[in-house]
Amino acid sequence: MDLLKALKWRYATKRMNGEKVPQEKLDNILEAIRMAPSSLGLQTYTVIVVESDEMKRKISEKACIQPQVMEGSHLVVFAAWDDVSAENVEAYIESVSKTRGVNISDLLDYKNLINGFLIKAGKDGINRWAARQAYIALGVGLISSATEGVDATPIEGFDNAVMDEVLELKEKGLSSVVMMALGYRDEAKDQLAKAAKVRRSKKDLFIYK
Amino acid sequence: MDLLKALKWRYATKRMNGEKVPQEKLDNILEAIRMAPSSLGLQTYTVIVVESDEMKRKISEKACIQPQVMEGSHLVVFAAWDDVSAENVEAYIESVSKTRGVNISDLLDYKNLINGFLIKAGKDGINRWAARQAYIALGVGLISSATEGVDATPIEGFDNAVMDEVLELKEKGLSSVVMMALGYRDEAKDQLAKAAKVRRSKKDLFIYK
Repeated sequence: MDLLKALKWRYATKRMNGEKVPQEKLDNILEAIRMAPSSLGLQTYTVIVVESDEMKRKISEKACIQPQVMEGSHLVVFAAWDDVSAENVEAYIESVSKTRGVNISDLLDYKNLINGFLIKAGKDGINRWAARQAYIALGVGLISSATEGVDATPIEGFDNAVMDEVLELKEKGLSSVVMMALGYRDEAKDQLAKAAKVRRSKKDLFIYK
Repeated sequence: MDLLKALKWRYATKRMNGEKVPQEKLDNILEAIRMAPSSLGLQTYTVIVVESDEMKRKISEKACIQPQVMEGSHLVVFAAWDDVSAENVEAYIESVSKTRGVNISDLLDYKNLINGFLIKAGKDGINRWAARQAYIALGVGLISSATEGVDATPIEGFDNAVMDEVLELKEKGLSSVVMMALGYRDEAKDQLAKAAKVRRSKKDLFIYK
């Protein structure tokens, strides 16, 4: 589906009909998320794909009461890295070296730039920055879903601490920041399924300089 | 251009060739940004479209030395709202009412939900949350540019306080958070123009539950 058409077709689906998203479509959506841009190319997040009914039930009971959790096909939870370790940077530089056939020694300036940024940002700055990158990936995931004709509801309103526990994220140095439920709209139950899209006008949203 | 193809075609262009992005393509990119999803539908950001050479020069001299500022065609600066006022919420509810033909009185629960969220979030929470929404819009803008065959470089590395001064944002209750330079890659000057894309492997990026 064409991008603007897809953006107009999608909406934050409130009620889903339980239908499964086919594996091929899910894989396309995840591949788009994997290709999402991120600051310095570091992809400072991990993406948890919840597909088992058991895990969806746990999340529904403990962390998020919204109906899409059980009515949706999959949950895609974006968890930001709590920190960027020296090992993370080394692994990234190695990946750049291998993928592009460049010597590690020729990437020293880039590595120093990354480390300089991280030191300057500090722990709080890294947290804030890592979470923001996850939102770029979320945006990409939402659009990709729409172009695949799959409904996707972004959900911020859940208990992050409990979600981290349920998904065992803390021990991996991760914090859940936002998720999206994938599935198909239930037009009979969802009063927003046919509602017109509300957006600020061009005049209100944009300033030209 | 197909979404996955567009995501693979795009990269954070380092050097641009000065060519102008046609108005129609710019309008499509801005319309995609206008259609971007945001929490509660509030679109808690304003988007500054910098097109004049004079303003680009000011930004280049004072806030951001990266070459894309002058070599690019346009800069699109995402500025988060510093706060969400009662008037903002009223205006939004009025817009929902008008767009969907629903009585204001029938939107009272929704208005209370928004106000409840804002009170609970507090000023700092609102700041963090508003900025994150801008990153969804950034993601949409980057993808839309790619599908239009326009290069777009996300740029976080600028002096936010100076940018706010140059664009006169503070007096409007806005803070610049991130921007993208639009234009066309200079393949001769940009050593990354033909570099392979570096991304974490599926196995590394995704956890299935």
